[in-house]
Amino acid sequence: MAKKWDKDFFEERDRLNEIVFSNEHLGIKRFFALDEQAYHGGALDEQTKEFMGLVASMVLRCDDCISYHLKKVYDTGATKEQIYEAFNVALVVGGSIVIPHLREAAEKLESLF
Amino acid sequence: MAKKWDKDFFEERDRLNEIVFSNEHLGIKRFFALDEQAYHGGALDEQTKEFMGLVASMVLRCDDCISYHLKKVYDTGATKEQIYEAFNVALVVGGSIVIPHLREAAEKLESLF
Amino acid sequence: MAKKWDKDFFEERDRLNEIVFSNEHLGIKRFFALDEQAYHGGALDEQTKEFMGLVASMVLRCDDCISYHLKKVYDTGATKEQIYEAFNVALVVGGSIVIPHLREAAEKLESLF
Amino acid sequence: MAKKWDKDFFEERDRLNEIVFSNEHLGIKRFFALDEQAYHGGALDEQTKEFMGLVASMVLRCDDCISYHLKKVYDTGATKEQIYEAFNVALVVGGSIVIPHLREAAEKLESLF
Amino acid sequence: MAKKWDKDFFEERDRLNEIVFSNEHLGIKRFFALDEQAYHGGALDEQTKEFMGLVASMVLRCDDCISYHLKKVYDTGATKEQIYEAFNVALVVGGSIVIPHLREAAEKLESLF
Amino acid sequence: MAKKWDKDFFEERDRLNEIVFSNEHLGIKRFFALDEQAYHGGALDEQTKEFMGLVASMVLRCDDCISYHLKKVYDTGATKEQIYEAFNVALVVGGSIVIPHLREAAEKLESLF
Repeated sequence: MAKKWDKDFFEERDRLNEIVFSNEHLGIKRFFALDEQAYHGGALDEQTKEFMGLVASMVLRCDDCISYHLKKVYDTGATKEQIYEAFNVALVVGGSIVIPHLREAAEKLESLF
Repeated sequence: MAKKWDKDFFEERDRLNEIVFSNEHLGIKRFFALDEQAYHGGALDEQTKEFMGLVASMVLRCDDCISYHLKKVYDTGATKEQIYEAFNVALVVGGSIVIPHLREAAEKLESLF
Repeated sequence: MAKKWDKDFFEERDRLNEIVFSNEHLGIKRFFALDEQAYHGGALDEQTKEFMGLVASMVLRCDDCISYHLKKVYDTGATKEQIYEAFNVALVVGGSIVIPHLREAAEKLESLF
Repeated sequence: MAKKWDKDFFEERDRLNEIVFSNEHLGIKRFFALDEQAYHGGALDEQTKEFMGLVASMVLRCDDCISYHLKKVYDTGATKEQIYEAFNVALVVGGSIVIPHLREAAEKLESLF
Repeated sequence: MAKKWDKDFFEERDRLNEIVFSNEHLGIKRFFALDEQAYHGGALDEQTKEFMGLVASMVLRCDDCISYHLKKVYDTGATKEQIYEAFNVALVVGGSIVIPHLREAAEKLESLF
Repeated sequence: MAKKWDKDFFEERDRLNEIVFSNEHLGIKRFFALDEQAYHGGALDEQTKEFMGLVASMVLRCDDCISYHLKKVYDTGATKEQIYEAFNVALVVGGSIVIPHLREAAEKLESLF
């Protein structure tokens, strides 16, 4: 069975965020707030926004960003089939250099379902 | 009033595609087909896919790709408010270097509505 | 003599910003504010920050961003020799794909001095 | 002596590809086929294409892609001197940010020869 | 018939290079020399290196770099069929965001042959 | 207490550089020299150049490059507050995809002070 990764991932993320926040830079703190708010449901629902975040993270090849949005989009109730269609858009837009990140995301996805 | 750009854009795109296709490279032809099919409605609807394509194009800063998906997402009936929420996700993910592309997209959007 | 570009550049920038702001997206408005504040003098002075913005813009190959920071760094009293040293850092970090942007920046710089 | 890495690399790659393929997305499957076919000998021979794939992977800083094309170009009979000339092109085009990837590639290359 | 672009392109390039060189930054001057030397024939012949430069320029989406290497690779006697195979490698590696640059390159190529 | 990383980092860097240099490619050797010289104090002082190198490395998301310039900028006597202002510029320019790299840099910074 695929390894559970999401609990460790979010704990490590929280631990490092605390270091960043302990240095109390107002601009950085505000950026993190904007980042979080960008995915709240509004004129577009949260799931659509998480799908946009996932595809953007894949074409920019940011593994941590992919892991984050993969878990979030899963939490909104997205199906595996829907997530693979998002993978496909990212692959076509970003090309074969996306493949190593798609492979890792595919393994992480198995462990969520 | 904002300048109409979409007719010229798609005509120029068609003209150049004809040059590409006239050279009959099978791999390139197949890639173009995969690209087109990736946005067909399936487990995710066409509008969601066009929004993913728009955000991916913005974070990768590809003006022609942005123009294309902007028109397509508009054609699916997306509202201006929804499109600005997609702009915001792209801006937060991709940073201030997205701004020049967001500005151009904003002007193109005005002419569509 | 080199063509004056900076007045037109900032006027066009303002015109497009007005279109963006007229759509009143709070997240985008806040992002633009964070972007502006990031270059205010603080623990690092404004000139150093503008040099960082210039080099970041060059390695990311964003012509509008380069034009903006080139003018700003010039306004802080930077010399042409200092700006060429920043060009050199950007060139070494980002490689030969930076050269077309460096060429354009070099021409714009001549018109400022 | 340098560590053998290629067997593990290709086994892990196969293991993850199986996960991807088990989800049976037709578009992704076709993309992988196009990717594979792009490097077949034709008007340009396979070695030239693998060199293009290697340099493209280096300037895009994709370690897995570099490992893959490094082994493939080695398998076509390329000499170490030829591969270093390709490294040099990638370094000049992509700049100093290519260096960490060039270092890793250099170590992997030692173990192949 | 397709428009001749190469003479204008190289003249403008020379004009801007003169501005850069007139500022006499030793590091920049040396970088330009390294860039030029990287494509000289050695263990790999000049044509192979120009093909590597072309594909690297396409996946990094640098239009000026593409124009430059397109003309150079043409000057080495490469056929249109060979150049389209290089286009295909760039397209597969870099994804659909390469397409606008491929379209422009295709038009420029017609005018060379 | 945060883990000491800098000694290991520079030793591994030296070990791999030796492999690269042992292959005696003149162009690569010259590139490494240009890279080193670009950060020497001149019309701009060394600290300003290291800050430019740090921000460029962050927006290009090159972890090894970030580690290198983080240590160098620290060695010039930069304060933690100054370094966080540089982090902020990089974050605003490069967007949320910079965050995973900023988190790692923040942890590395704690161990230096």
